Amino acid sequence: MMANAIDRLIGELARLPGVGPRSARRLALHLLKQKTRMVPPLIAALAQANEEVKSCSHCGSLDDVDPCRICTNASRDQSLICVVEDVADVWAMERSGAFRGTYHVLGGTLSAIDGRGPEQLRIEPLLKRIGDAGVKELILALSATMAGQTTAHYVAERLQGQEVKVTRLAQGIPMGGELDYMDDGTLSAALSARVSY
Amino acid sequence: MMANAIDRLIGELARLPGVGPRSARRLALHLLKQKTRMVPPLIAALAQANEEVKSCSHCGSLDDVDPCRICTNASRDQSLICVVEDVADVWAMERSGAFRGTYHVLGGTLSAIDGRGPEQLRIEPLLKRIGDAGVKELILALSATMAGQTTAHYVAERLQGQEVKVTRLAQGIPMGGELDYMDDGTLSAALSARVSY
Repeated sequence: MMANAIDRLIGELARLPGVGPRSARRLALHLLKQKTRMVPPLIAALAQANEEVKSCSHCGSLDDVDPCRICTNASRDQSLICVVEDVADVWAMERSGAFRGTYHVLGGTLSAIDGRGPEQLRIEPLLKRIGDAGVKELILALSATMAGQTTAHYVAERLQGQEVKVTRLAQGIPMGGELDYMDDGTLSAALSARVSY
Repeated sequence: MMANAIDRLIGELARLPGVGPRSARRLALHLLKQKTRMVPPLIAALAQANEEVKSCSHCGSLDDVDPCRICTNASRDQSLICVVEDVADVWAMERSGAFRGTYHVLGGTLSAIDGRGPEQLRIEPLLKRIGDAGVKELILALSATMAGQTTAHYVAERLQGQEVKVTRLAQGIPMGGELDYMDDGTLSAALSARVSY
């Protein structure tokens, strides 16, 4: 009974991550109620993104140029590569403003369950980058989860024998973290990595 | 530093209800990572909805024809009007399959806080519909909230003197509801509206 156009829009919105049928209906209704104000700008943004955004063939991040602006930026330290799981991690690091090197996006973590082996990750391109250029240090900035650490371990092993320093992010109490709320793993890690005052 | 196309897409997605900056980034990334599979169908659905969907000038619901398919459906009881707050309520009633009459969407509830008075709601068109046609019954299917009930009361008052039966939805224990979890208001309403077994 519902118009095909409405049904179809709800269906497309429901394909988005974290959007169930109920939220898809709510989103569709919101868009349709203020059609002129909401829909054309969204279409335009989607079309522009579809047209312009591409993967950087160098680091695997997303930009509207390939290689991306970070890989070609002379003011960034091209000898320092921060290895991350996902493009979202590049964005997070960039928001922090704390990093002035370059990135390498693996595209996930090793996962037996999801059938993701080393060949699904961008590990070969990483080895090639190290071989090619004057890369001095590789920061393995992977999640402090089982999957992240397994992947970091695997990457570190593959880098054995390469003339490059391999580091990882410090583990410890997050900024603003209250001891009372920290899990045992975080507390032990913070304790054993304690530094002189 | 982020490509304008990505920034703009995140900005547009963040305008959707319930989508904060963080979810907007997650949605954008999901769309961009599987661009060909995700973006063109979404654009097409939005464009079709933008082109075809319109408000029914009769009942205020949304459809791709005006008057909508429910208002012109001869197999639906045109003498029975279910008055609801929002198009979402029409969809909910239609999903239940329990109603074979027609609808009238008020477009909200009376709200002093949001500055929504009677003239912002589609009350005049409702009175006009009753005057015009052989409407026999009006079901005030508004939310069992303060705002919904205030609105229902106001509409009922405006209908005084009209040759039409005015009813409201029954209040009581929802299907599957456990007494233990019911609030006092629901319990009192269910108790005073008790029916013979």
